[in-house]
Amino acid sequence: MRLSVNQITVAGRDTRELVEGCVRHGIPAVGLWREPVAEAGIEEVAKLVADAGIRVSSLCRGGFFTGGDRAALEDNLRALDEAAALGAPCLVLVAGGLPAGSKDLPGARAKVMAALEFLAPEAGARGVRLAVEALHPMFCADRAVVSTLGQALALAEPFPAEQVGVVVDTYHLWWDPRLAEDLPRTAGRIASYQVSDWCLPLAADTLRSRGLPGDGHIDLPAFTRDVSRLGYTGDVEVEVMNAEVAARPLDDVLADLVRRHRELIAPHLQEQR
Amino acid sequence: MRLSVNQITVAGRDTRELVEGCVRHGIPAVGLWREPVAEAGIEEVAKLVADAGIRVSSLCRGGFFTGGDRAALEDNLRALDEAAALGAPCLVLVAGGLPAGSKDLPGARAKVMAALEFLAPEAGARGVRLAVEALHPMFCADRAVVSTLGQALALAEPFPAEQVGVVVDTYHLWWDPRLAEDLPRTAGRIASYQVSDWCLPLAADTLRSRGLPGDGHIDLPAFTRDVSRLGYTGDVEVEVMNAEVAARPLDDVLADLVRRHRELIAPHLQEQR
Repeated sequence: MRLSVNQITVAGRDTRELVEGCVRHGIPAVGLWREPVAEAGIEEVAKLVADAGIRVSSLCRGGFFTGGDRAALEDNLRALDEAAALGAPCLVLVAGGLPAGSKDLPGARAKVMAALEFLAPEAGARGVRLAVEALHPMFCADRAVVSTLGQALALAEPFPAEQVGVVVDTYHLWWDPRLAEDLPRTAGRIASYQVSDWCLPLAADTLRSRGLPGDGHIDLPAFTRDVSRLGYTGDVEVEVMNAEVAARPLDDVLADLVRRHRELIAPHLQEQR
Repeated sequence: MRLSVNQITVAGRDTRELVEGCVRHGIPAVGLWREPVAEAGIEEVAKLVADAGIRVSSLCRGGFFTGGDRAALEDNLRALDEAAALGAPCLVLVAGGLPAGSKDLPGARAKVMAALEFLAPEAGARGVRLAVEALHPMFCADRAVVSTLGQALALAEPFPAEQVGVVVDTYHLWWDPRLAEDLPRTAGRIASYQVSDWCLPLAADTLRSRGLPGDGHIDLPAFTRDVSRLGYTGDVEVEVMNAEVAARPLDDVLADLVRRHRELIAPHLQEQR
């Protein structure tokens, strides 16, 4: 099985609870977030997942480069160290939105490229890949000035593929009319494939509007076949930010994720592992 | 002055009230909606605007093609007749979202092209231009499978420019990293330039989240310069869907629109009329 549970999908539990739950349900991988990992202690979590035989598919998250400050770069170096210590193959990068009071979108985007130039060799030295994530355009002002796969690729392509890749997240990208052209360009660059669904109406907190795979409007089998055909052999991470999902009992959610993975995702993955 | 007030910005008044308000405030144009126009009567509204010396910059709206039904096409023919009777130079087209229960985005998009093939000569025969509008990607599932200017252009370009053009709406397009490439392709194809602002947080009803020009994150002077440089000489329509704005007294809103137009838009228009 190539299912990974992103920690935020079951937010509110500590990392040990998540890892033990994954073991119970035969889920082989987790995507971790820096804050709960720091609470538990990096070394402790590294040992926890190793002992459990669980893969860490990604660490969320670095980025927030658009302020152009040195502190952000230093924080990203710490995040890279944490990813390396956890054995996470990639650090997910969220670009950051417009700086407060600024309407200079091209300027903000230029800062993202400048940050990657600094961080790419540092990532390479640690054996961790930077994973540039395009966020849905509704987050452009406040969260990520990188809105499309094409844009994420343009940021990644100047660097060696083992230093900078991209996240392919169905929620953020499904609507993009250029996907059929841009997806083939990602071959060898997909650092993480994340799945969740587009559900309506959007929640009052739009950040928490994602649905479990199958509950919304995205053709996840087709998307998964496309990603798999590109040679992606990594884990398929379910990252659902949704208060109702997180409020359900952990075992209920994990069993549901396994079922949905088996129905909607696994049959569409070419077995290459 | 090239300001036009889209009727939905001051929703809740009848068309006569809007037209009389525009005359009081020296606003030379209005963008009309079919429903309030039908309430007042097409012929009556045509006479009302002619007597007032007001231009009709657009009629909203046709479209909703993705169901693929004949009834939608017939309704669009009626809308074209109405636009012609009102002297509106263009009919704004909203593509429509995914049909109920469908996840076939390419299929829905193909239906839009098929509808344009049928409607373009009909529009030409009536002297009305079809104006394909890309809506922000957050409306892709439920409202418009046309999400980018590049996509709107690809739909328009097979047809004569006088039959099919595009809407350039700042709210829907401002985030698009391909805008610098795609905007120059619109020369001669811009049927309507609509302005409003991206404000956060999004309203619970995301459709009504738009802000008045200047209240949000979009660089409207820069956007307006870009559109103007392409040779666009038409009206600049303020289309703000926002319950709070519509609830303000009519004269208060219209005076505000004039002030914002003079500050943010007019100085950035090349005078070509």
